Amino acid sequence: MKNILLVGAGKSSSYLIKYLLEKSDEEPILLTIGDIDIENTKKLVQESEKVTIVQFDVFDKNQRKEYIEKCDIVISMLPARLHLKIAKDCLKLGKHLVTASYISKEMKALHKEVKEKGLVFMNEIGLDPGLDHISAMRVIDRIRTNNAKLLLFESFCGGLVAPESDTNLWNYKFTWNPRNVVLAGQGGAAKFIQEGTYKYIPYHKLFRRTEFLNINGSKFEAYANRDSLKYRSIYGLDDIPTMYRGTIRKVGFSRAWNIFVQLGMTDDSYSIENSENMSYRDFVNLFLAYSPSDSVELKLRSYLKIDQDDVMWEKLVELDLFNPKKKIGLKNATPAQILQKILENSWTLQKEDKDMIVMQHLFGYEIDGKKHQIESSLMVLGENQIYTAMAKTVGLPVAIAALKILKGEIKSPGVQLPISKEVYIPILKELENYGIQFTEKEVPFLGYNPNHVIG
Amino acid sequence: MKNILLVGAGKSSSYLIKYLLEKSDEEPILLTIGDIDIENTKKLVQESEKVTIVQFDVFDKNQRKEYIEKCDIVISMLPARLHLKIAKDCLKLGKHLVTASYISKEMKALHKEVKEKGLVFMNEIGLDPGLDHISAMRVIDRIRTNNAKLLLFESFCGGLVAPESDTNLWNYKFTWNPRNVVLAGQGGAAKFIQEGTYKYIPYHKLFRRTEFLNINGSKFEAYANRDSLKYRSIYGLDDIPTMYRGTIRKVGFSRAWNIFVQLGMTDDSYSIENSENMSYRDFVNLFLAYSPSDSVELKLRSYLKIDQDDVMWEKLVELDLFNPKKKIGLKNATPAQILQKILENSWTLQKEDKDMIVMQHLFGYEIDGKKHQIESSLMVLGENQIYTAMAKTVGLPVAIAALKILKGEIKSPGVQLPISKEVYIPILKELENYGIQFTEKEVPFLGYNPNHVIG
Repeated sequence: MKNILLVGAGKSSSYLIKYLLEKSDEEPILLTIGDIDIENTKKLVQESEKVTIVQFDVFDKNQRKEYIEKCDIVISMLPARLHLKIAKDCLKLGKHLVTASYISKEMKALHKEVKEKGLVFMNEIGLDPGLDHISAMRVIDRIRTNNAKLLLFESFCGGLVAPESDTNLWNYKFTWNPRNVVLAGQGGAAKFIQEGTYKYIPYHKLFRRTEFLNINGSKFEAYANRDSLKYRSIYGLDDIPTMYRGTIRKVGFSRAWNIFVQLGMTDDSYSIENSENMSYRDFVNLFLAYSPSDSVELKLRSYLKIDQDDVMWEKLVELDLFNPKKKIGLKNATPAQILQKILENSWTLQKEDKDMIVMQHLFGYEIDGKKHQIESSLMVLGENQIYTAMAKTVGLPVAIAALKILKGEIKSPGVQLPISKEVYIPILKELENYGIQFTEKEVPFLGYNPNHVIG
Repeated sequence: MKNILLVGAGKSSSYLIKYLLEKSDEEPILLTIGDIDIENTKKLVQESEKVTIVQFDVFDKNQRKEYIEKCDIVISMLPARLHLKIAKDCLKLGKHLVTASYISKEMKALHKEVKEKGLVFMNEIGLDPGLDHISAMRVIDRIRTNNAKLLLFESFCGGLVAPESDTNLWNYKFTWNPRNVVLAGQGGAAKFIQEGTYKYIPYHKLFRRTEFLNINGSKFEAYANRDSLKYRSIYGLDDIPTMYRGTIRKVGFSRAWNIFVQLGMTDDSYSIENSENMSYRDFVNLFLAYSPSDSVELKLRSYLKIDQDDVMWEKLVELDLFNPKKKIGLKNATPAQILQKILENSWTLQKEDKDMIVMQHLFGYEIDGKKHQIESSLMVLGENQIYTAMAKTVGLPVAIAALKILKGEIKSPGVQLPISKEVYIPILKELENYGIQFTEKEVPFLGYNPNHVIG
């Protein structure tokens, strides 16, 4: 029997656990699930001869050692900053490791030792990063073997609500960490390259420089991710003239979100005095010029030049943003924290709501002087609030990778990310059995089509 | 004889040295000037029995000790980050210290020891901070002694070109550190309070939320400084309902400067690859959408909605911003560094140019139920490129303070800033002899007048 230790059984582990449990019927595996909150874990899975649930504190050195020692592979679904403690123990104790997080500098520094010990530390094998890597690399490698020259790679991903649950004017609800949504795009200019020209978008313009996408007949928009350029070397596309990565939203979201950015409500760098007793309306007024003779509504519309019959205005009203009675109730909070709270009032998934994951890659390339383009799209719907599309697309690749490593099918040692054939072929194949399958089609090569861009 | 050691004899020390030299006719003082570049110092002053010039390296511990030991007071005009080395030696060797810089946390930490030794470490005694403190506190204290309640304090300062040298469309040239001008307002939202309501302006809106000012019959504008709130406790105005500090420009500057902010050209947080060989035009294009069929000019105007006959457009053209031949010539520079270089091409003072300092305070208060307002204004013109208004308004308060400390007229020990009567009365009086005099007038109490605000 092989032992799998899963540490951290949060939102994204429902499918991960379900998959491993199903596989345990045919594979000789035992699963130990460690979480700080075992009540939550017990809702996901019952203890059995194959499943042990333990209260696990990652900061408890002895407990960490005890459980890692007993297993053959660790899956860490903890917050990214906690992986390193686990990784160091895995290295010391000679265990494989799988995470869905970006490889940190500290993790990368372990590569040589991990490799020398013949261990696999597979990272970035969730949704984004993860599914984006493996689905893109499969197409990129195929194009390359045809002696083609890659001209363009654009990649988009988004976590949204399923159409049947799309019930507000924003066409958006929080299906993932709300804080990340509020802070999205901050911390530096977005960087990408288009037909050989570098482009930089400052944060305050990010949501006005969106692109349109068509995925399975529906129209979406995307805003640029922070750093699209670093993927050039990761994917071996150093000389590619167009490289762009973006986050997908329903059309019209970004234009309205830009209101918050322009007002300064997404700022997380300072606290507001006495925020606790402020009303929603007071909060809005903090960002508007002082003018006691004008209403907060009129000041905002005039400042940001929003017509009264613009749907952007309706979106703000829908959030109850101008309510003078609703209190913020957060002490010395930052504008971003307050905005998050206001949005959570409106954008939290309701019991019956389902989520949706959309992803699209565009590959442009040239063979024998002829230009081609491939559009590869994925749309995954959640089943309910536990078996969400997010949990499925994050957790399944993780679980599959763990099992393949355990069985020795994925074996290149070191601190890895899933960009080699050895990794992506078996994982993508297995994902298809679970309905995670990209639709690929040839489209006319558009290159960078100016008509396809706003602003 | 008393010995004064001046370390750092840069741009702002011309008047400082001139003043001390003049005073040495009547006072028993000797002056030692230490700078890393004595050639420059020698242009300002000749050695004599009263003046010694030494090459001085602030990082040379022994030299520091040698010279500080020999003097009675040190004036540090070094960059602010270097004061602490001097301050610690002064403390150890029992010498007074004068600087024109904000009191750092580290400097503040010395207060108790400095006080115990009976030393005066006077800081923030240049122009801004400095002249703003002393001129404001004189009026604030006077209003207070009349049993009045202070309702409003707004304070504005700017370094500009003199009207006779105001020869470009921006009505602006660099009369001070260009880097500070390019980065102005960054690093956090501007905070202030207006009639009891806190207001926060994010950086990308800062230059669209200006106020108009009238100083000696000329119209100016001002944008808000980073943190106006901290001055409440410094000035003992904790409960004042309106507190605002701003930077003065000629009308129209901020609206045009906002173009750079919107484009992202003032960003200093990342480097541009291959910036050295880029043209000015290439640089502008980095911040515009990719669209090979449109010109950089048209893309910019359309993006930022600037009409072709708008003077803002003329301002950009005046900077030669769209020149495809002019190279940037800076390696891996940040956008802010590149913008600075482009602006320096246009905004550097010419040989005959003169600068100008403008300052205005507004004080609103209530006595016996009646509201009053005082407007206090200062305008100082430079004589030439050495004896600038900036050097005069920075250097004279420093020099006067140093002499008064030496003579025991300013004697409250500790790490100080100039907000007490003991300090501001004699300094302001002496400044009047050099033409630095505020014009004060009673105006109708406007409180916060909405008509007096844009946006």
